[in-house]
Amino acid sequence: MNNPIPKSCFIFLSLLALSLSVTHGRSTRLEPCKRIVLYYHDILFNGTDAANATSVNITSPSAISKFEFGMMVVFDDPMTEDGRLLSPAVARAQGFYVYDKKDGYSAWFAYTLLFNSTDYKGTLNVIGSDPFPQETRDLSVVGGTGDFFMARGIVTFQTDDAQGDFYFRLKMDIKLYECYKI
Amino acid sequence: MNNPIPKSCFIFLSLLALSLSVTHGRSTRLEPCKRIVLYYHDILFNGTDAANATSVNITSPSAISKFEFGMMVVFDDPMTEDGRLLSPAVARAQGFYVYDKKDGYSAWFAYTLLFNSTDYKGTLNVIGSDPFPQETRDLSVVGGTGDFFMARGIVTFQTDDAQGDFYFRLKMDIKLYECYKI
Amino acid sequence: MNNPIPKSCFIFLSLLALSLSVTHGRSTRLEPCKRIVLYYHDILFNGTDAANATSVNITSPSAISKFEFGMMVVFDDPMTEDGRLLSPAVARAQGFYVYDKKDGYSAWFAYTLLFNSTDYKGTLNVIGSDPFPQETRDLSVVGGTGDFFMARGIVTFQTDDAQGDFYFRLKMDIKLYECYKI
Repeated sequence: MNNPIPKSCFIFLSLLALSLSVTHGRSTRLEPCKRIVLYYHDILFNGTDAANATSVNITSPSAISKFEFGMMVVFDDPMTEDGRLLSPAVARAQGFYVYDKKDGYSAWFAYTLLFNSTDYKGTLNVIGSDPFPQETRDLSVVGGTGDFFMARGIVTFQTDDAQGDFYFRLKMDIKLYECYKI
Repeated sequence: MNNPIPKSCFIFLSLLALSLSVTHGRSTRLEPCKRIVLYYHDILFNGTDAANATSVNITSPSAISKFEFGMMVVFDDPMTEDGRLLSPAVARAQGFYVYDKKDGYSAWFAYTLLFNSTDYKGTLNVIGSDPFPQETRDLSVVGGTGDFFMARGIVTFQTDDAQGDFYFRLKMDIKLYECYKI
Repeated sequence: MNNPIPKSCFIFLSLLALSLSVTHGRSTRLEPCKRIVLYYHDILFNGTDAANATSVNITSPSAISKFEFGMMVVFDDPMTEDGRLLSPAVARAQGFYVYDKKDGYSAWFAYTLLFNSTDYKGTLNVIGSDPFPQETRDLSVVGGTGDFFMARGIVTFQTDDAQGDFYFRLKMDIKLYECYKI
């Protein structure tokens, strides 16, 4: 049989080979097959701003920690292409985070990015830990649908603004390393 | 060395090549390596039907929305091969959903399908967004165990019945596109 | 064109071929590209041991079940290389579990393993069902970052100790089957 591999492996060439250089078991860093940078705006309900709030806490922090340990927040947050809250939302982030570090700040995120724009239609599903005192944090894109069918990758979080307890903005640098359609 | 690739890539041939046709970077839509259609029955505890209920809300909806925003429900739901609640359960769906849209209905799901039947033993892990006013919704199969070892794919939800707040039935069309064993 | 495949598929050779033997569509069981065994210690806050507790329940069990159905617990737990609680933590497990079986015990886990040791820097993201009356249970590693960039695999749970409601220890046998860097 005459060279059956290229076709079968093609999808993985697309996925992986873009800038891949491999020598004797070491690989240089992979380039993403798709990259999107968006800003996430979270306005936690403070008891009075029901109209503006985009998230609510559904459980209370535990008294055993000073770092909101145990507080879970459900969000429906706009994603914008620049850092301005009032820019058009090109996607929404819907899901939750929960503070899960006893002796410091960190939150565990699980959410879907829902795209319904001229550029993209589909979703990306993301989970992971956000130890937000760190400069950058990496979470996992574990699946996707529509234009992001079966995607996998990394989302790098960077805090872009934080105003007290009730507004913070994250730069989300979304890098897909497995793309079924490019 | 003599043709080391076919063996090594074989698993991906199995995974991906079934009906794959690739030409110059474009792929026709992949066919699943495994497909299972099941019905999910959720009976939310209404305060009086403890015996029949299969799910309970563990947090309350927020007052800032009319769409149950912030209500989280834990479920232990039967999965049947047809749409009848009383048909034998061939799997169970255990996990939770949380309403996560402020100005409309949507829920975020995270659950495991546990199979222990003559056909299948193992689990599938699913997460994603269910904006249920839409006709169909796609979520991600992000992993599997046992007969579904390391599987990935898509679950398409379709509402099959909804009776008030306390019973709904979803058709779940489970399509695996990465199968380690077929 | 001169043999472009080995390079492009190399990563998958690394991933998959280690002990893979494939004949006519049947595969022997894959060997992990990386394996780590750690012990997870969970000390649920009992109302008085705030200093020692590593987890808190953020919702209450439902009255419709005797098996803690609906109780969600957020944890920040040490991971040790042996079964001793006071051994140095080589990683932390941060996330939550929720009891999700009505007529028996089971919990649904979602967490990140955060490594910051001389051996490893990075994270593994894990979700899945833990029907803990069973001898062993398999959950999914759905993504990773840092030294575990884009990893996937299985974590096998085994209960190593359980003392009443407030302390249990799990042996977590972490087997990665997809490794981008080995």
